[in-house]
Amino acid sequence: MDLTWEIAHLAHVELLTPKLEESARFFTEIMGMSVSSAEGDSIYLRAYDDYEHHTLKLTAHRHAGMGHFAWRTRSADALARRAAAIEATRLGVGWHDGDLGHGKTYQYRTPDGHLSEIYFDTQKYKATDADRSALKNTASKFPGRGMNVRRIDHLNLLTSDVAAFRDFQLKNVGGRLSETIIFENEVKGAWFSVNSKSYDLAVTEDHTGLKGRFHHLTYAVNSREEVLLAADIALENGVFIETGPHKHAVQQTFFLYLYEPGGNRIEIANPTARLILDPDYETIVWNREERMKGQAWGLKTVESFHLRGTPLPEDL
Amino acid sequence: MDLTWEIAHLAHVELLTPKLEESARFFTEIMGMSVSSAEGDSIYLRAYDDYEHHTLKLTAHRHAGMGHFAWRTRSADALARRAAAIEATRLGVGWHDGDLGHGKTYQYRTPDGHLSEIYFDTQKYKATDADRSALKNTASKFPGRGMNVRRIDHLNLLTSDVAAFRDFQLKNVGGRLSETIIFENEVKGAWFSVNSKSYDLAVTEDHTGLKGRFHHLTYAVNSREEVLLAADIALENGVFIETGPHKHAVQQTFFLYLYEPGGNRIEIANPTARLILDPDYETIVWNREERMKGQAWGLKTVESFHLRGTPLPEDL
Amino acid sequence: MDLTWEIAHLAHVELLTPKLEESARFFTEIMGMSVSSAEGDSIYLRAYDDYEHHTLKLTAHRHAGMGHFAWRTRSADALARRAAAIEATRLGVGWHDGDLGHGKTYQYRTPDGHLSEIYFDTQKYKATDADRSALKNTASKFPGRGMNVRRIDHLNLLTSDVAAFRDFQLKNVGGRLSETIIFENEVKGAWFSVNSKSYDLAVTEDHTGLKGRFHHLTYAVNSREEVLLAADIALENGVFIETGPHKHAVQQTFFLYLYEPGGNRIEIANPTARLILDPDYETIVWNREERMKGQAWGLKTVESFHLRGTPLPEDL
Amino acid sequence: MDLTWEIAHLAHVELLTPKLEESARFFTEIMGMSVSSAEGDSIYLRAYDDYEHHTLKLTAHRHAGMGHFAWRTRSADALARRAAAIEATRLGVGWHDGDLGHGKTYQYRTPDGHLSEIYFDTQKYKATDADRSALKNTASKFPGRGMNVRRIDHLNLLTSDVAAFRDFQLKNVGGRLSETIIFENEVKGAWFSVNSKSYDLAVTEDHTGLKGRFHHLTYAVNSREEVLLAADIALENGVFIETGPHKHAVQQTFFLYLYEPGGNRIEIANPTARLILDPDYETIVWNREERMKGQAWGLKTVESFHLRGTPLPEDL
Repeated sequence: MDLTWEIAHLAHVELLTPKLEESARFFTEIMGMSVSSAEGDSIYLRAYDDYEHHTLKLTAHRHAGMGHFAWRTRSADALARRAAAIEATRLGVGWHDGDLGHGKTYQYRTPDGHLSEIYFDTQKYKATDADRSALKNTASKFPGRGMNVRRIDHLNLLTSDVAAFRDFQLKNVGGRLSETIIFENEVKGAWFSVNSKSYDLAVTEDHTGLKGRFHHLTYAVNSREEVLLAADIALENGVFIETGPHKHAVQQTFFLYLYEPGGNRIEIANPTARLILDPDYETIVWNREERMKGQAWGLKTVESFHLRGTPLPEDL
Repeated sequence: MDLTWEIAHLAHVELLTPKLEESARFFTEIMGMSVSSAEGDSIYLRAYDDYEHHTLKLTAHRHAGMGHFAWRTRSADALARRAAAIEATRLGVGWHDGDLGHGKTYQYRTPDGHLSEIYFDTQKYKATDADRSALKNTASKFPGRGMNVRRIDHLNLLTSDVAAFRDFQLKNVGGRLSETIIFENEVKGAWFSVNSKSYDLAVTEDHTGLKGRFHHLTYAVNSREEVLLAADIALENGVFIETGPHKHAVQQTFFLYLYEPGGNRIEIANPTARLILDPDYETIVWNREERMKGQAWGLKTVESFHLRGTPLPEDL
Repeated sequence: MDLTWEIAHLAHVELLTPKLEESARFFTEIMGMSVSSAEGDSIYLRAYDDYEHHTLKLTAHRHAGMGHFAWRTRSADALARRAAAIEATRLGVGWHDGDLGHGKTYQYRTPDGHLSEIYFDTQKYKATDADRSALKNTASKFPGRGMNVRRIDHLNLLTSDVAAFRDFQLKNVGGRLSETIIFENEVKGAWFSVNSKSYDLAVTEDHTGLKGRFHHLTYAVNSREEVLLAADIALENGVFIETGPHKHAVQQTFFLYLYEPGGNRIEIANPTARLILDPDYETIVWNREERMKGQAWGLKTVESFHLRGTPLPEDL
Repeated sequence: MDLTWEIAHLAHVELLTPKLEESARFFTEIMGMSVSSAEGDSIYLRAYDDYEHHTLKLTAHRHAGMGHFAWRTRSADALARRAAAIEATRLGVGWHDGDLGHGKTYQYRTPDGHLSEIYFDTQKYKATDADRSALKNTASKFPGRGMNVRRIDHLNLLTSDVAAFRDFQLKNVGGRLSETIIFENEVKGAWFSVNSKSYDLAVTEDHTGLKGRFHHLTYAVNSREEVLLAADIALENGVFIETGPHKHAVQQTFFLYLYEPGGNRIEIANPTARLILDPDYETIVWNREERMKGQAWGLKTVESFHLRGTPLPEDL
């Protein structure tokens, strides 16, 4: 069976933070997101055009990292099929009743140990009088606050074995491999696309050898100019800029990498008008020589980009 | 069966022009497209990141208008299924061997008479030494010429009966209805999406009552700023600007409408970061009162927008 | 004597508003300006890179309109020279001690009766710990709030006699006439530049025949993209958009016209990289035929643009 | 006497190139400039909104470097005053009759030996039918070709003694010092402004100790987005990108540094809406610690930026 279209999109990510309040303030005041709910040690947030209850769950924890991430399937049937397939591997965890904002969910571990889940039933965000957009085709109104991120874009995970992660994803979960980095037969990175976006999940090699770590979560803004504005806002608010703004060679994304107060890496990005509409798109393979050229316009990849993930080694 | 994902994307449009050379010069010099082939009375063109042999076929004709338009299906099986379904209506025309750039094709008429076709086998564009991009994930290099359009975006047709067109499309061809305009139970416009783009085909009522006419073909640029640059380029080159740049309320597209030398309306547009990733997206319905507000920021729709289509009445 | 360089720049404008609090909220929350001081019935505001104490003084009044506007001269000597020249006409009002933020000031009436003033001694804005920019060459930090206007740009006044206003300005106050509209020998509009900006003051004919009215005050943002964002912010916050975004033919400014809650017209604009550096620039003269083409890309000038000024006729 | 306003603007720069034809093709095809004249071993060029005959003179030479640069004074009187003042130093060279495009000119050497000149009489560019802009306030039409640079912006020279250069400039030529870098009392860089632009000439220390070298010449585009487009165009055309796009801390310019085929460094830049309108602007002084932070968003200055100038050491 063709698994390419089983998953609809990346749904949400749970980030762990040792500074819950500061992190929440960063995502709302600086990035322009909104709080949908708060419950126990967790705060649920969404960008202004995210259509679900939340795309980010912030949970207080003694260290930074990722709690779990979730895919929404393209249908209830696709959910059943994917759960069955994953169940048949040693990586299934099992069904649970869901969380705030979504229904019955199947949990599993990636081959590197990241907790993941899939679901179909969801609660769509209903705008209130206070945040209803003047344009009824927008989930809630353009905030005019901070970076004004529009929607969740993609997730990047670190893994000790990219090939194992890739094979598991394509054989059990779904999507296609839009781009990959291979150095002399060793897979260094893999980019998965589950819809017309050129990627929804990226997995890159953890140079420290640690397992199951988080690299970054990305929110999209409407233009490259707004990525530049985001850089100014980061600068003016003491937010650490790791690298960028610049254009990736892989996937061409115009990017800016920040550390949120809890220590997790966040990317603000714009994809321009690039989409992959070709249903039998041939995977782009980058070799060592090509990657040594750095990013699209020549920026060298900063060392921390290959080493830093959360949890930090000292937290493990 | 769920037809939502049967079609992969809008593939190409054949425009008729009484001024073939001038039209070709407009699409290459002004819009920044490239010629893939020329054969007989036709010239085949593509934007720099269109992955197929062509997305535009210009054919010399005594008047402006659309020759045909084509969808690429998501698979060979989907092609067989869609052809069978259309065959079962009175609107099938039949199979042919394809054209430059694509294989076996099933042709049909829309309920309003527009000639249309579907195919799966295609010839992907292979960049030459002269136009290969420095980024291997781009179909050919960024031209740095004129408007630098990136890819075909969508097609807008006029029809004498929007409801009939809509029903035929959704029951036989595929896709979903992302937005629609309904005035007191009368369907005035319908926007169809077949992938994560918010629309690939729009159909609006022909206020003249004519049948089977073409409204506009749209190419996407990477930013709203480039739509503004396109307006300057149109202005400086004597290209008629019908309306824009402005932001549509329906679909939120940032638009600019031009007439190419042959008389067909062309749109230069940027979708910002908007996508519809929700697999069970609920159709947005606009009523009369809402549409009377004009475009997003208040621009009134110009009268010609509802009246002018090609062929012009005097050419029929 | 050459008066071209006597004036340094437009310094500030006092706007009258019947809704002081709502107006103040508009300028701070929507436009992103900051309050420097509040005293009596007035609130003093500045944009983030305005270097003086304020560029906008909002004063409670029973109707909208302009209280006065001010030029800063290029030197103390220039102030003395200009005051003496104006004193020699029938339009001088006299010296006063200044206001919050600036020193000794010479007041006068324009030929149409607008209250105006010139001064040199000023109080430069000193950023506080809370609003100090990370870049020491910026007056205060980029707000990341609403429209993020950078600096005061220009003022547009209505007048019953453009030629009289123009002659008074050039003979007594200073600057050069960068552009003008003349219909069959009748001067319809005049744009004055006092530095490298292409205009700092515009004067256009009041089609109602009223005297001494205000047309609009303009703040500049850093890019045309931010004018588009400003339009979205206006739309989402119920701010009336009169016209735009579009590009002016005269002066080429990319513009957006709004009404602030008090009823005064405000423009959000971006000048792109255009400057007039030529010290003997020849005035651009537009005739009726040229102006009938509308704005740069063809937008017709809305009727209210020629009729509406503040105070409104019913307030006089 | 106050010399601040004696000079109107940077007028033109003569660049030497060992590859005259390739350099000319770069400036026309890639940067979008136009040839005004060609005479002997020189080609004269201008950007689309440069109002004079040329702002760039390319001259064939055995190595890269700068032939000379020129200021236009604000008046004929200012020219006489500046020539007399410079004559009184040991650095005057003398009067000559001018060159294509401008009249009588006074030549001198900067303290570091760069050949420089000042003039007032100039030949303004008259657009032809082929390149006349649809907007009569633009010197010639927007090209829609390559990087579409609008106007000359500034010049950066290397010098063995920044303090000496600065003092000579301010005491004899004119302008004001808008920003400067001082490391423990040693002047490392100086930025001079002669109009409302925040700088027209920058002088930085030559870390090689060589004298009289050229660092870069800058042309302005209308938006930061166009600087990004310029980076794509450079990438696609094999033009070496030294660093950027990024935002300078000093002067805030959004920049991209390229090497033209002859070997000279060219900057494509956008100043956003920043201007210095304050007539008694206080010089911004940057110390070592501040400069160690790199560019505005953290990009480290590439080593070549401090070492590479033209002529290259091997050419001397």
